[in-house]
Amino acid sequence: MRLSDSTVTIIGLGLMGGSLSLALKGQCARRVGVVRRPEVARHALSVQVADEASCDMPVAVRDADIVVLATPVRHILASIPGVAAYMRPGALLMDLGSTKAQVVQAMNALPPGIAAVGGHPMCGKEVGGVEHADASLFTGAPFVLTPAIYTTEDAMALAREVVGAVGAHPVVLDAERHDRAVAAISHLPYLLATSLVHTEMEASRADDVTRTLAASGFRDTSRLAASQVEMMLDILLTNRETVYSALAVFEQKLSDVRTLLDNPAGLQEWMREAQCRRREMFM
Amino acid sequence: MRLSDSTVTIIGLGLMGGSLSLALKGQCARRVGVVRRPEVARHALSVQVADEASCDMPVAVRDADIVVLATPVRHILASIPGVAAYMRPGALLMDLGSTKAQVVQAMNALPPGIAAVGGHPMCGKEVGGVEHADASLFTGAPFVLTPAIYTTEDAMALAREVVGAVGAHPVVLDAERHDRAVAAISHLPYLLATSLVHTEMEASRADDVTRTLAASGFRDTSRLAASQVEMMLDILLTNRETVYSALAVFEQKLSDVRTLLDNPAGLQEWMREAQCRRREMFM
Repeated sequence: MRLSDSTVTIIGLGLMGGSLSLALKGQCARRVGVVRRPEVARHALSVQVADEASCDMPVAVRDADIVVLATPVRHILASIPGVAAYMRPGALLMDLGSTKAQVVQAMNALPPGIAAVGGHPMCGKEVGGVEHADASLFTGAPFVLTPAIYTTEDAMALAREVVGAVGAHPVVLDAERHDRAVAAISHLPYLLATSLVHTEMEASRADDVTRTLAASGFRDTSRLAASQVEMMLDILLTNRETVYSALAVFEQKLSDVRTLLDNPAGLQEWMREAQCRRREMFM
Repeated sequence: MRLSDSTVTIIGLGLMGGSLSLALKGQCARRVGVVRRPEVARHALSVQVADEASCDMPVAVRDADIVVLATPVRHILASIPGVAAYMRPGALLMDLGSTKAQVVQAMNALPPGIAAVGGHPMCGKEVGGVEHADASLFTGAPFVLTPAIYTTEDAMALAREVVGAVGAHPVVLDAERHDRAVAAISHLPYLLATSLVHTEMEASRADDVTRTLAASGFRDTSRLAASQVEMMLDILLTNRETVYSALAVFEQKLSDVRTLLDNPAGLQEWMREAQCRRREMFM
């Protein structure tokens, strides 16, 4: 099965699912979106985010060659067995969830005939909803693929084709390794951003000039605090132990820098190391 | 004295001093930049960042109606008495330093004839140097003015005129109040960004896939870690006690959120509060 001949059914037409559907336009035979409410289905069609939009998951899944789960992680986890039960033998099940260990565990529990691959595109926006869907969202982004125990070579090849079709590049990783990495580079930054905003809220209760003075440094460091709560809550709750570990490393670093405030030469060296790494990563 | 008739001498033509000079083009009679090295003076003239560039501070200051100190804070502190000694009576001394309590303290120690006002434009870039100077850097930014004990009404009016001329809006604040606010919204975010980068560095020593996967969330949360080390070191060292306090509040918030990871309803509420505040501040 090639992507160009496939019917792709996307469950959830929010930011991620909607963007995937837009990015797949012209790359597959048909794009079907599954949503919960009829008015969302009508809206999705009116803005042409998919070729069809349906509230009838069993029918939309039964006809699909590729099914992509694009809802918050805990919803993905809950829906994997039920969706797989309607899939035709040999069809590919993928997801776009931001944590992978529990998703792959749920995929491993499916009957051997189901070809399932976990997926996580490393991109996003802090706003959700189909109205922010963007065909170029995946362009140039790493797109992690996490094999399950019954993942076949054909399934992996088709998943890679989906990744390439939306402009991303595949990074094949073990699910636990993925979750440890994103705890440090994504979930921890979210917790720092929210804790920073709560710190500002407390400071502003004493003197609300903080709000007047907050500039681009605060804006960028706190940006992730504006992320969708439902999505982030699912992420944190499905990667809790790994997030604890990342938090513990961070707290040690913060304690180190507190001590270094009494040691200008050491502080300067620490700042230079961070500056060098950050510039190397993004400039 | 009006700005339009003034000779403005800017000590330090880096990002901030260079941008101020560019923004003042056509708004004052003459812009003189003071730098340490002759080749920097030649370069500044070749890129027309000022009308004159000099390494001779006493001469450049003697003729000035307004002197603006635009070097890192510890250099500003060290140079206030020496620069003021060459200023003509009635000329205005300002600075662009990012912390204000110690600067205003140094201004308070000047003889009563010197009209001095502390200043801090709430804008910047993580890169320094005259090559990044930008006439629009101050546009729309709050520009804090912190009066010293001998600051006259005329001096304040002229300082306000400078602020308006570069497109910023003045926010008059007590220096200690300024320093408390920026500890929470600027210096703390910098420490979080550097500690986050050090956390990623530690994670990457075990598995360097963190670097491959780092996306826009990490990029923005860590952006301040790329800031100029010399400038940030001076800021932290001249606002240390206040930074300790902001760190303590943040550490409490981080400890709160760690506990909340076991309490989904409470965690969700905390996340919603941060989302709401962040969106209210920047959207």
